[in-house]
Amino acid sequence: MNFGSDNQSGVSPRILDALIAASSGTAASYGNDAWTRQAEQAIARVFEHDVKAFFVATGTAANCLALSAVAQPWNAILCHAQAHLISDESTAPEFFTGGARLLPIATDSGKITPAALRDTLKRLPDARPHSVKPAAVSLAQATENGLVYTPAELKALSDLAHEHGLHVHMDGARLANAVAALGCTPAEMTVHAGIDVLSFGASKDGALAAEAVVFFKPELAEGFDYRRKRAGQLVSKGRLFGAQFTAWLQDDHWLDLAHQANHAAQVLAVSLQAHADIRLAWPVQANEVFVVMPKPLLERLLAAGAECYDWYPDSLPTSMPLGADEVPVRFVTAWSTSQQQLDEFAEVLGS
Amino acid sequence: MNFGSDNQSGVSPRILDALIAASSGTAASYGNDAWTRQAEQAIARVFEHDVKAFFVATGTAANCLALSAVAQPWNAILCHAQAHLISDESTAPEFFTGGARLLPIATDSGKITPAALRDTLKRLPDARPHSVKPAAVSLAQATENGLVYTPAELKALSDLAHEHGLHVHMDGARLANAVAALGCTPAEMTVHAGIDVLSFGASKDGALAAEAVVFFKPELAEGFDYRRKRAGQLVSKGRLFGAQFTAWLQDDHWLDLAHQANHAAQVLAVSLQAHADIRLAWPVQANEVFVVMPKPLLERLLAAGAECYDWYPDSLPTSMPLGADEVPVRFVTAWSTSQQQLDEFAEVLGS
Amino acid sequence: MNFGSDNQSGVSPRILDALIAASSGTAASYGNDAWTRQAEQAIARVFEHDVKAFFVATGTAANCLALSAVAQPWNAILCHAQAHLISDESTAPEFFTGGARLLPIATDSGKITPAALRDTLKRLPDARPHSVKPAAVSLAQATENGLVYTPAELKALSDLAHEHGLHVHMDGARLANAVAALGCTPAEMTVHAGIDVLSFGASKDGALAAEAVVFFKPELAEGFDYRRKRAGQLVSKGRLFGAQFTAWLQDDHWLDLAHQANHAAQVLAVSLQAHADIRLAWPVQANEVFVVMPKPLLERLLAAGAECYDWYPDSLPTSMPLGADEVPVRFVTAWSTSQQQLDEFAEVLGS
Amino acid sequence: MNFGSDNQSGVSPRILDALIAASSGTAASYGNDAWTRQAEQAIARVFEHDVKAFFVATGTAANCLALSAVAQPWNAILCHAQAHLISDESTAPEFFTGGARLLPIATDSGKITPAALRDTLKRLPDARPHSVKPAAVSLAQATENGLVYTPAELKALSDLAHEHGLHVHMDGARLANAVAALGCTPAEMTVHAGIDVLSFGASKDGALAAEAVVFFKPELAEGFDYRRKRAGQLVSKGRLFGAQFTAWLQDDHWLDLAHQANHAAQVLAVSLQAHADIRLAWPVQANEVFVVMPKPLLERLLAAGAECYDWYPDSLPTSMPLGADEVPVRFVTAWSTSQQQLDEFAEVLGS
Repeated sequence: MNFGSDNQSGVSPRILDALIAASSGTAASYGNDAWTRQAEQAIARVFEHDVKAFFVATGTAANCLALSAVAQPWNAILCHAQAHLISDESTAPEFFTGGARLLPIATDSGKITPAALRDTLKRLPDARPHSVKPAAVSLAQATENGLVYTPAELKALSDLAHEHGLHVHMDGARLANAVAALGCTPAEMTVHAGIDVLSFGASKDGALAAEAVVFFKPELAEGFDYRRKRAGQLVSKGRLFGAQFTAWLQDDHWLDLAHQANHAAQVLAVSLQAHADIRLAWPVQANEVFVVMPKPLLERLLAAGAECYDWYPDSLPTSMPLGADEVPVRFVTAWSTSQQQLDEFAEVLGS
Repeated sequence: MNFGSDNQSGVSPRILDALIAASSGTAASYGNDAWTRQAEQAIARVFEHDVKAFFVATGTAANCLALSAVAQPWNAILCHAQAHLISDESTAPEFFTGGARLLPIATDSGKITPAALRDTLKRLPDARPHSVKPAAVSLAQATENGLVYTPAELKALSDLAHEHGLHVHMDGARLANAVAALGCTPAEMTVHAGIDVLSFGASKDGALAAEAVVFFKPELAEGFDYRRKRAGQLVSKGRLFGAQFTAWLQDDHWLDLAHQANHAAQVLAVSLQAHADIRLAWPVQANEVFVVMPKPLLERLLAAGAECYDWYPDSLPTSMPLGADEVPVRFVTAWSTSQQQLDEFAEVLGS
Repeated sequence: MNFGSDNQSGVSPRILDALIAASSGTAASYGNDAWTRQAEQAIARVFEHDVKAFFVATGTAANCLALSAVAQPWNAILCHAQAHLISDESTAPEFFTGGARLLPIATDSGKITPAALRDTLKRLPDARPHSVKPAAVSLAQATENGLVYTPAELKALSDLAHEHGLHVHMDGARLANAVAALGCTPAEMTVHAGIDVLSFGASKDGALAAEAVVFFKPELAEGFDYRRKRAGQLVSKGRLFGAQFTAWLQDDHWLDLAHQANHAAQVLAVSLQAHADIRLAWPVQANEVFVVMPKPLLERLLAAGAECYDWYPDSLPTSMPLGADEVPVRFVTAWSTSQQQLDEFAEVLGS
Repeated sequence: MNFGSDNQSGVSPRILDALIAASSGTAASYGNDAWTRQAEQAIARVFEHDVKAFFVATGTAANCLALSAVAQPWNAILCHAQAHLISDESTAPEFFTGGARLLPIATDSGKITPAALRDTLKRLPDARPHSVKPAAVSLAQATENGLVYTPAELKALSDLAHEHGLHVHMDGARLANAVAALGCTPAEMTVHAGIDVLSFGASKDGALAAEAVVFFKPELAEGFDYRRKRAGQLVSKGRLFGAQFTAWLQDDHWLDLAHQANHAAQVLAVSLQAHADIRLAWPVQANEVFVVMPKPLLERLLAAGAECYDWYPDSLPTSMPLGADEVPVRFVTAWSTSQQQLDEFAEVLGS
């Protein structure tokens, strides 16, 4: 009963098959191989747009390298206060950007709103050169609390950002889950919604380790090959990422995997909500379920073999104060979450 | 007939099998999994020493993260003028160390000698705080021109470095080939020879992508988990590196692979040396063969399907001036170089 | 009627005399001169403690270099949300520390309290190596809103910080004003109160340009000469800073100047408070007066030749909501603020 | 008898007078004052060109900030192997540029020649993105060994650099001495000779501490105010630099001072050359004299009160091997070197 994280799941058989196939024979190194080329073309096809795509090993590298291309060291990058970028990636943003600063935007919903973005921009001091000048906003899709921005919401945020001269980055570590959730096209959710550069993550959705930085505006990618190389992210055997991405994107496999994970989250949410002592913290839109539950109940679940994490009390909406003995808990489902696990969990949970 | 680079080779079946086995099921993320633990233990066993090992995606990351642990941003790191570190890793050393400087030591042989190291240290200005103070020396084993330091040579260099307060780093992207070449134990070539921290590379010797930073002095690893994380090198699915390293080191598989590569280089060298117009630039000790040949001959070989690279004229010994139409050429063999390829090459080459 | 900033004031005659005296003749460069030595000794005498002192050109350099000595690039530095460090020094903190992160502590008072510090530390995520680990707290004395910590308050904060393994930095750009305000000894307010490293600023208190980083724990200064040099802060003619600091500290001149500035602030505050439409935002403790006033009144004052700045609405206590047409305004007095200016202002202000 | 360095000299009376005059009264801070404006205009007038000028505290900061504007962190900057930039400024170049690499060009003369520059560019590996790509060349005028490039020489180098897409930086810590030596106009030696950005140093030529970064191509200065601020180089009392530069440039005072220093060097050289055991290492063109002399002679001079430094044996031309007991010695004259000092030295030296 692993609901710890989708990055604890294994590798989808189709992706593994592709890795196996790619493992034999010689091939040009450093991304000059056929698999890499294929994967780049697959990404362009999926987003219906000419792109510059660069494969890297981790989501942190994808996010922070992408941001280094759109922010100078004296700039600020706005993101949600709960974003993975600001909470869980150490000082990688500062490292890769040469010292740019993250500025958090706190909202109850976990999603940045145009009003919150506008308000933040308005309140930032603007005394050149003393103040830190915003240059980019980073939006997580899905968000760190499992919500999904609609294309219209993204467009409104991007338009506002662009009006203020900001670039728009999307942390798409769970973009697959978001696309699957809304049923829109990947293009509608990214390039058509005004996203300038995307961290496109496969690792949480069935891959072994495969992330891409995707530029929808090629001019932003100027010099990015140097950035990746000097950051130690240019692997010699490009087939590693090329094979994974190609298989992942082929025949909508990535969306099938995401649908499975999202579906499991819905089933899980039903079980959780059926329990009298459990409250849902936010609607379940992608593959995460956040609840508030009594601590003894959490302990009982853990003891019974459920894997899940207690979450930051600060992240809860202000409208949802914690009771004396309550804790927030996060459950994440994956492409590999089985009906059997869900059934077993429901049984353990009781009601 | 691929002699382009050992990083163009595929994945050894045993390593691939381990990857396949590790790909199913859930596992704790970020290196807290059983495969990672096993791999760490395997490394300690191979080097007969307590170590702190950290897995990363590329040799550049391994080298430069390792150096960031032993050099302050105002320090210098000495390395051979032909080292991969200084020639082929962009400004990654500066990036990871926060601005430390590489200082090249040029020798004809491609190997740093105690005399050359001593001479360099003696000639460096020492006006604190204006001068760049050396803090580490980085030795490549095998070297960029395919030579191998003996344990005694390494010990002499390490002793000299330590006397001068320098840490000793080994770039072991081809350590397997060096160990296989000399038949000594891995410990004799590293920790017993005074190496403080090692970049231990599997990617060129049959793995898909797997490198480790191995500290023989645990105190140098203080804070290294933070360094790796903020550098975007902590993959979520640790099994990727854990499974590869475990299989690679098991039953001396890594040395078997290296023996195959080294043997292929010897065979190749025999063919090359048999040709009247070809001169060997250095003895063949590991899995690389450097020769000087007439340019038309190189062109004929390439046209016939041989893959190999012309090399830097500057790297040649001064005792080996290039003839009018000659070029230096590098041939690299891999674990996967077949007798058939070698035969075919010999035939193409003629004499 | 300049109340714009104390850094807009001129140079005290005694300091100027010292500069003149130091300007002739040859002297060893890079701080190896007699004036620098004298200034170092004067600082040790003033703080009644062995110190390591390093002179630099700006307060930003002093703050950020000091912090680079007590925080690793993967650490966080806590400071008040209104601190000059976080609001007015661009991304210098990130630049000098190699990417450490500032974490703001917001309090109504403008002063960090033990409760606020404890609460912040408690709420910070602590998932190694993903979270940013706090390593230091920076306290401004006087604070950015003109308040002064008592030695007891500082001691309580330092003790708490040390218990949590944090170093304590003091931004003493206006330390002179704080010492003058409380009448305690400089040692009581710094080394005895647990401060580890101090930015000691003379520029706002009568000097031309003179700042020092003062380490009360010499071991923290290890390598600091390299840090200063590579940051371009080691001036060749050390007499520039040496002469200023020596004269500034001699015969309590620095405190006399600060007393004058503080006194002027008190007089100014009386005038301002006498006006029916003006409210004091915080008590006047050093040399700054923060008020809330109707915008038309501010405009009238500016038109009449008063120099002062409207201030950040966000910085006001929550207990002091702004009226429809009100603005916060900052007035700063200096050692050179004359009674005549104060009289003129009172007259312009009316009541 | 101080021939240690021109940065050990005092302040010229005219510059001191300007500092005194600027020291009273209030003025806008952070460079928004009248003295700064005047100094900017004086620089534009001197170079007969629209410029963007930024004042900083040290030559190291001027050089390295300037270079940060013309080189990306993955670029190389070429400079002479003996340049102050690479020999005496710690790792400041790496710090300010975010990790760009200095590549030395060694020539016997101490001056970079078009042939040497062309040869270096030709020999640099060019394997994108693995190699470090050159982006700028830095020329010292006068050079570290006291020579002066003619405008024609500079133009030839700049043209070659620009053809290769490199920006051209001039380290003008002793530009005054070079202009005085050649009698050309400052414009002929800089903007007309193809220099893109200049470090313009007054500190060695009579100022207390005053350096400027001067951009001849305004577009290169984009964002430079942020760079300077975050580097802690924006002093609050801009009058410090503004007053010095204004007085220094007025009525060719800077050239008068430089003429005095250069003249003293000529006189000194005559004395030195008259001695049978002393050989001149290079022609004396600006305000430095480099000789080779027996060590006992140097010791006798030092004992007699002469201040001068033994110099790097490596810097000598290969055509000038050191005798068994010989040492290279550097003598630097300044605007303040008196005829009496020169006479006294000649007497001490004897022949």
